[in-house]
Amino acid sequence: MSSRAAAPSLFDDVDTPVAKKKTAKKKAARKKAAAKPAKKARPAAAERPKAAPRRASADTMAARQREISVSEFFTKNRHLLGFDSPLKAILTAVKEAVDNSLDACEEAGILPEITVEISPTGEKTFLVAIEDNGPGVVDTQIGKIFGKLLYGSKFHKLSQSRGQQGIGISAAGMYGQLTTGKPMRIRSRAGKRRQPVEFLLSIDTSKNKPEIHKSEVVEWDKAHGTRVEIEMEGRYQKGQRSVDMYLKQTAIANPHLTLHYVDPGGEKVTYERNTKELPPETVEIKPHPHGVELGRLIALLKETNARSLSGFLREEFSRVGPKVAKDIIHKAGKGLTEKSYPTRIAREEASALHKAIQETRISAPSTDCIAPIGEELILKGLRKEIEADFYVASQRPAAVYRGNPFQIEVGIAYGKPGGVGLELTDEGRIQKRKEKVEATEDLVGSADEPARIMRFANRVPLLYQQSACAITKGVIQTNWRGYGLQQPRGALPIAPMAILVHIASVWVPFTSESKEAIASYPEILKEIKLGLQDCGRKLGTYIRKGKRLKREFEKRSYIEKYIPHIGIALQEILDLTDPQRDSTVSTLEDVLHRSRKF
Amino acid sequence: MSSRAAAPSLFDDVDTPVAKKKTAKKKAARKKAAAKPAKKARPAAAERPKAAPRRASADTMAARQREISVSEFFTKNRHLLGFDSPLKAILTAVKEAVDNSLDACEEAGILPEITVEISPTGEKTFLVAIEDNGPGVVDTQIGKIFGKLLYGSKFHKLSQSRGQQGIGISAAGMYGQLTTGKPMRIRSRAGKRRQPVEFLLSIDTSKNKPEIHKSEVVEWDKAHGTRVEIEMEGRYQKGQRSVDMYLKQTAIANPHLTLHYVDPGGEKVTYERNTKELPPETVEIKPHPHGVELGRLIALLKETNARSLSGFLREEFSRVGPKVAKDIIHKAGKGLTEKSYPTRIAREEASALHKAIQETRISAPSTDCIAPIGEELILKGLRKEIEADFYVASQRPAAVYRGNPFQIEVGIAYGKPGGVGLELTDEGRIQKRKEKVEATEDLVGSADEPARIMRFANRVPLLYQQSACAITKGVIQTNWRGYGLQQPRGALPIAPMAILVHIASVWVPFTSESKEAIASYPEILKEIKLGLQDCGRKLGTYIRKGKRLKREFEKRSYIEKYIPHIGIALQEILDLTDPQRDSTVSTLEDVLHRSRKF
Repeated sequence: MSSRAAAPSLFDDVDTPVAKKKTAKKKAARKKAAAKPAKKARPAAAERPKAAPRRASADTMAARQREISVSEFFTKNRHLLGFDSPLKAILTAVKEAVDNSLDACEEAGILPEITVEISPTGEKTFLVAIEDNGPGVVDTQIGKIFGKLLYGSKFHKLSQSRGQQGIGISAAGMYGQLTTGKPMRIRSRAGKRRQPVEFLLSIDTSKNKPEIHKSEVVEWDKAHGTRVEIEMEGRYQKGQRSVDMYLKQTAIANPHLTLHYVDPGGEKVTYERNTKELPPETVEIKPHPHGVELGRLIALLKETNARSLSGFLREEFSRVGPKVAKDIIHKAGKGLTEKSYPTRIAREEASALHKAIQETRISAPSTDCIAPIGEELILKGLRKEIEADFYVASQRPAAVYRGNPFQIEVGIAYGKPGGVGLELTDEGRIQKRKEKVEATEDLVGSADEPARIMRFANRVPLLYQQSACAITKGVIQTNWRGYGLQQPRGALPIAPMAILVHIASVWVPFTSESKEAIASYPEILKEIKLGLQDCGRKLGTYIRKGKRLKREFEKRSYIEKYIPHIGIALQEILDLTDPQRDSTVSTLEDVLHRSRKF
Repeated sequence: MSSRAAAPSLFDDVDTPVAKKKTAKKKAARKKAAAKPAKKARPAAAERPKAAPRRASADTMAARQREISVSEFFTKNRHLLGFDSPLKAILTAVKEAVDNSLDACEEAGILPEITVEISPTGEKTFLVAIEDNGPGVVDTQIGKIFGKLLYGSKFHKLSQSRGQQGIGISAAGMYGQLTTGKPMRIRSRAGKRRQPVEFLLSIDTSKNKPEIHKSEVVEWDKAHGTRVEIEMEGRYQKGQRSVDMYLKQTAIANPHLTLHYVDPGGEKVTYERNTKELPPETVEIKPHPHGVELGRLIALLKETNARSLSGFLREEFSRVGPKVAKDIIHKAGKGLTEKSYPTRIAREEASALHKAIQETRISAPSTDCIAPIGEELILKGLRKEIEADFYVASQRPAAVYRGNPFQIEVGIAYGKPGGVGLELTDEGRIQKRKEKVEATEDLVGSADEPARIMRFANRVPLLYQQSACAITKGVIQTNWRGYGLQQPRGALPIAPMAILVHIASVWVPFTSESKEAIASYPEILKEIKLGLQDCGRKLGTYIRKGKRLKREFEKRSYIEKYIPHIGIALQEILDLTDPQRDSTVSTLEDVLHRSRKF
């Protein structure tokens, strides 16, 4: 049914993407030739509309079939990778490079220090440069890592990392190449005992292979690290979805990072690290048996080295010991024993095994493969970057979707001058805060606007496609009215509030390759909501207390206002002197103050 | 900066995905060995946190680098292809197969007749079968078309088709294989003079290559056509995003299609074709010069067969004749002449040429590459499937985004019993309609619900990710209050209304590979809004007329109510007889009726 195909013996030699242009004329001639005989092979006349002549046959269609290189695919579909507008392109390039730098530093146990520089090179073009102090890239691999899509180390292992696809940084280079025609420049040094090298490279998109224009040993005063430079068409702008915002949020979620940023205007900002402790090293895990599909199980059975079924189950999966293996095999039946030879197990038996696995209780995956940020550091990050009245954070226990462990963390910063919970703040503090608040306005929003959401996946801020993200859905589906906030139906709560949600997982299910939003797996959505409720309850207590205090405050001022009048009335009734009256008034005020816990 | 890489001489031989499992143990041993020397190559002590020991070096990281096959990538990211839930999986598979069938029939000039059957095979598994009367697939190509991702004929050409990526149907087979372990079954006959063949095939995901288990000549009473059978895990359910809804909408957008559907309960539905005319054959076009990026221009200059710059511009692009070519070259300057040899043009000159192209007036792309549905057929389709009070359709002229021609069509069906514009419909009609309305309730929605949107791209209904789609954004950003409808801020209008929007283009920019939503290119969004406004104005006139009539109707009934009392009053004052009174009353009623245009 698909796009039809054919006569490969005839066309195979010329129909490769490389030969494409060279043979355009020949092909046109052939097409004409092919069209003629096709006319004879027309379908039964009854089925054919009169107006429409025979257009093409299975054979003529087949002549057009060919392979599509993954680079060609993503060049044409570059919006899938986050390169759909000049504004977004710069952000995406910075993000991909910074993600890689952070991953590499953590993997190597180096406290990361990263410099991002964006400088205009023309009316609509910018040079984007990212430099890190990471472990560097071995020179023989530089080509593939930066000049080939779908190449990397993180795809095949189950452990938490920012990158996972092996696409990002090569795609950024490809976009630069497409819009400016210029190759990317990579400088790297893989440790003190190696020479620093510099590469000029681009991607041969029809083959998805690196094209290295130049590679040479250079001078560099760094002991180790990598610098990537890409010139690309772009537009720079501050605001909600800017590079500035991305870097600010990256600093919040990565308190161990020191980040320097030089914007296109030449202004420099530095985010100093909050802690000298690296996130705990995450462990690579094996898949959990409950997440494996039947087809995958069959493939694993075929590929395994294990010589017994029991051994297979214990070696290929996490959380399966001898007892669990025995249970599963027993449940499966079909003549399977612990000693059955894995590669000889047929589909029927594999299917029974698969069913048995689903029915057996197996402990949840271990969570040392996940490195959450932690409540303390989330609070620290929020306090550092956002001025608010109330902060709360909450960490959920690890959970599992489709066999992949994940963990949700939530933080909330609430209230600011002019906002709700603020009536009692003294003037001095308000003034001092106002300045800081103005600087972080974009993170919290004002009192009559929807709450701002900061979304993170494996410590990476997500700035685009907010409405398509499970995190946003979680916030919308939480009942914020129960916590004393306004919330229109089916919408975000209205409050001067920033909500931070972080998902850490060995495999974050993004809704697209550009990694901008998280797919709404039910397990993930549930955990997000539970985390939000945790924080929401504490926020509710605070808000209710604030409202109660506010009411008390109003009552007190109301009574205070009348106390002098009561004094005058008493004076008249009891014939008091003026000092007697004043002393009565101040006694009354005293009583009032003591009676109200203020 | 990416995931680091290394020592390829040592690992290259074993680190292919195929050898992966076999060498797991060896690798573990090597990793241990590699970890030791790495410890010596640690970075300067000052940079290293005390708590974290050296974790990995550029070399140990390099040992893990490897290529990711596109099939592996999409197996792990199968939600990108629309296989993220059992419910959606069946719909996606049906959709991919039907799209291909329709494309092939149109390309071959055959009036399509397609049968979709879904039958349960187990508790959670279904057999999905799609059979067409298309031109068939030549047997030598069946493997690649159904067993390889990124293979097809539609990707490299600029013409309107439903499929464009060469992923869909293979991905459906891959999902079946993953969830049930069973291969897909393909039967095809490429014309009367060929034997019908049947293939059993699956995909080798680590290599992205077809694995053919069986292929044989079979008996089949069809002269030409293809049948695809895939068994997969799934869940079946009727409703908004069901296979039923997809097929119903497909019938609306493809009036030339006869469609049979057998649902899992065994119920049969047939949608008969509305017209015997195939959509006009679309022409393949060359790229428009205004849409070409500098990098692409440089690549084209290198690859061309043309021997002069003028020839290059005329041959490789649409809408460039000798005069336009001359203009461009003249504007570019830099010593370029019409006779410059294309392959010798350097980056600097290419850049000037690129700039000159953008600055030269070139006619818009021709639009014979686009086959819109047409206002008439849209109205016919809406009337056939939806019972409403008012129908309107509008077709925008073709426009261009990023060099790709596209065209927007809009249709609206408005009002139904109990809805706004309906007060004047007589009882009989209401009753008759009620039944039909109930049957199409899900297409229109009720009066106090948001309008329903039917989104189509190249005649394919889009059922998922509505909120991420440019069409939805267009509807939300249109001011429906101006047309007399309610509309909450930033939301869909509230009305018993179905809005159909169709985008036809040589390249529809989807937000993901699963082709569920259209990316919001500004040009596309603008055209959508203009189309909606077109229909909206006419709807507004209708609604205002309805409202005026309603007011008149109210006034009339009010006056009518008092005419008898006036009669009695007149009788008393003028001393009329009862017949005189009655005749006066009826005269008054007559006058009232005549005075109001009703």
